[in-house]
Amino acid sequence: MTEFFTLLPPAEALQRLLERLPGTLPPESVPTAAALGRVLAAGIDSPADLPAFPRSSMDGYAVRARDTFGATPSLPTYLKVAGEIRMGSVPAISLQPAHATLIHTGGMLPENADAVVKVENTQPSRENEIEILKAAAVGENVLKVGEDVTRGTEILPSGLRLRPQDLGALMALGITHIEVARRPSVALIATGDEVMPPEAATGPGQVRDINSYTLSGLVASVGGLPKRYGIVPDDLASLKNTAEKALRECDVLAISAGSSASVRDITEQVLHSLGAPGVLLHGVAIKPGKPTILAVANGKPAFGLPGNPVSAMVIARILLLPTLHFLQGALALDATKVSAHLTRNVASAAGREDHVPVRILHRDGETLAEPVFGKSNLIFTLVRSDGSVTVPLNSNGLSQGEIVDVRLY
Amino acid sequence: MTEFFTLLPPAEALQRLLERLPGTLPPESVPTAAALGRVLAAGIDSPADLPAFPRSSMDGYAVRARDTFGATPSLPTYLKVAGEIRMGSVPAISLQPAHATLIHTGGMLPENADAVVKVENTQPSRENEIEILKAAAVGENVLKVGEDVTRGTEILPSGLRLRPQDLGALMALGITHIEVARRPSVALIATGDEVMPPEAATGPGQVRDINSYTLSGLVASVGGLPKRYGIVPDDLASLKNTAEKALRECDVLAISAGSSASVRDITEQVLHSLGAPGVLLHGVAIKPGKPTILAVANGKPAFGLPGNPVSAMVIARILLLPTLHFLQGALALDATKVSAHLTRNVASAAGREDHVPVRILHRDGETLAEPVFGKSNLIFTLVRSDGSVTVPLNSNGLSQGEIVDVRLY
Repeated sequence: MTEFFTLLPPAEALQRLLERLPGTLPPESVPTAAALGRVLAAGIDSPADLPAFPRSSMDGYAVRARDTFGATPSLPTYLKVAGEIRMGSVPAISLQPAHATLIHTGGMLPENADAVVKVENTQPSRENEIEILKAAAVGENVLKVGEDVTRGTEILPSGLRLRPQDLGALMALGITHIEVARRPSVALIATGDEVMPPEAATGPGQVRDINSYTLSGLVASVGGLPKRYGIVPDDLASLKNTAEKALRECDVLAISAGSSASVRDITEQVLHSLGAPGVLLHGVAIKPGKPTILAVANGKPAFGLPGNPVSAMVIARILLLPTLHFLQGALALDATKVSAHLTRNVASAAGREDHVPVRILHRDGETLAEPVFGKSNLIFTLVRSDGSVTVPLNSNGLSQGEIVDVRLY
Repeated sequence: MTEFFTLLPPAEALQRLLERLPGTLPPESVPTAAALGRVLAAGIDSPADLPAFPRSSMDGYAVRARDTFGATPSLPTYLKVAGEIRMGSVPAISLQPAHATLIHTGGMLPENADAVVKVENTQPSRENEIEILKAAAVGENVLKVGEDVTRGTEILPSGLRLRPQDLGALMALGITHIEVARRPSVALIATGDEVMPPEAATGPGQVRDINSYTLSGLVASVGGLPKRYGIVPDDLASLKNTAEKALRECDVLAISAGSSASVRDITEQVLHSLGAPGVLLHGVAIKPGKPTILAVANGKPAFGLPGNPVSAMVIARILLLPTLHFLQGALALDATKVSAHLTRNVASAAGREDHVPVRILHRDGETLAEPVFGKSNLIFTLVRSDGSVTVPLNSNGLSQGEIVDVRLY
């Protein structure tokens, strides 16, 4: 496969593209409650200590630890009960020596108290008195001020894609609006005279548009906004018109080229005509997906993706999605990977990176990766698989039984 | 920790809940293009063969294989060129013996053609003639009718949560609308006199609502529709009113109880009052999250989740999210897990299942799981972690260096 040796490996091709982009999209302010999956545009420092006051982590009695010294079940210490701490309010009392106050989980410790004795380690005694059955150390069962996070600490880094717990942490600190990267809009154009919309009754020779929908799903999965521009006939003027409009309206353009050579040529011409610097490269050392075109026009990335549905998805995962992460300023995230034993040999050729779809199986406590062989024209190759295994550029293949990383779809 | 021995393990508690539910929610029809992440309500059989006609998988010449027999670079076979197959149309010609037709990738084979010779294995000869430099076998470079999928085959099973490739496959077959499970709506109520809305300026003794937001994010992540009913004061009548309204309007109810014992009691009373059979169990053999309440009221599941933010999220992942999968009829999905070496010992106690938050590190080519120790009151314990490790019910802990499964958040 010497045809691959003059082509850049996927990682270098991506690098070549990203270094021609002006950077991340401008941020926007959104309510924290609606920010799941969005990417933080700037690191956030805690505006306060959390907890902001000493809290009990148990139901029990707030005490001065030194008053409980030496207490055991056989030789309890007796303390006067001075009322009860109401949830959500500042304790009205200041704890006197040899006194205790009933307190609930999450309640604020009264002045002078420095520990909480769990209710299980106490016993009612005479009225307004309890027996302490176990000595408490200073700070026991108490959440200290700033124990969760201290004021001024960076709590969330710039570029973090927000998870449910991050939203909770922001809310805990009263941060109800945040600056996040704008969601990149991605224009999707399908081409090819043989390609028909899914709702069409197709005749012999015609196929339905797959790529506009698989790519929409992928784009949405990383926070992008897919916008479909339909199917454009196999002619230069039509494609140029639609592509120009699409790139004006969106942040990213992806043309899924029809499968014939003539459409690929037209796609390259159009991508080159949209603005400087134009096409950066045509062809990547990857299988499937070799006939990929990468371009930048006036600061916006533009992709010529292969028409074959499997190739289009592989290239979108390898090159388009990282570009969308980049535009959002998202921290580089390792794709979720699972280790598995390969169930059979996979041949490859040095000089290209192979992406082999696999199905994950669990057998006798082992995780197995079973290659799903199928031509890259066949969408059901992907439907039958759970992820893919990468055969590196300089490898001649992988062996049965080898432990491989499966990148999950 | 003998307190755990009378409690059900989480898996059995979940089973106890699910077997009291009437089943999956009724399906609804949605456009396939908008069905990413939705769950198929019924298996789908292919209405047609795909491809529906024999297609070329290469740019080249459609031939009768037998006409190329014996062709080599030194002794090529000469074939007359009979026109070109236009993309998207039925070939007008029927291939005559010793003839070839120019064909593009994805083009339909003409009548009598049974193979395609790649353009690289041909060479122009006299006008309207080519040299075939390599013999083609029958079917070579041809996608056969039904090679991707055959008519009548089940292509996608009931309960599948739709991925981008599944949408593409449906579109390829012209299936533009599908029946999916209705998205379960989940009413979220926070309780506790100490709990304030995130936008409030809190005073000493008060904390902001975290759980309504972390739980909203989790619910949305599995296709549920979170609906927040705000913060209800710590009193029976108020909580009962809000819970009744919430359960009327939604498919699932989750009350995140304030942390004090009195609110937990009120929560249990309210959950028991909503309808038959009422509370199924109070307390689960899990840490964190022991004071969990599971109830069913008139066929709808209702949860009393712990007030501590870490506990609330752990229990939501272990019990609430599987319930939402169940209501959608989703195929049981293994959570995404990663194998990693534990960086230090983790103690546990037999009789309870421990869920220990961990951070994933990559060092010297090894994946490491570093326990993030922190009280379950502290939301930043989760912010600092990437997933959790489960210490099984009957284990006394895990050892440093042990290989563990990390369930990713």
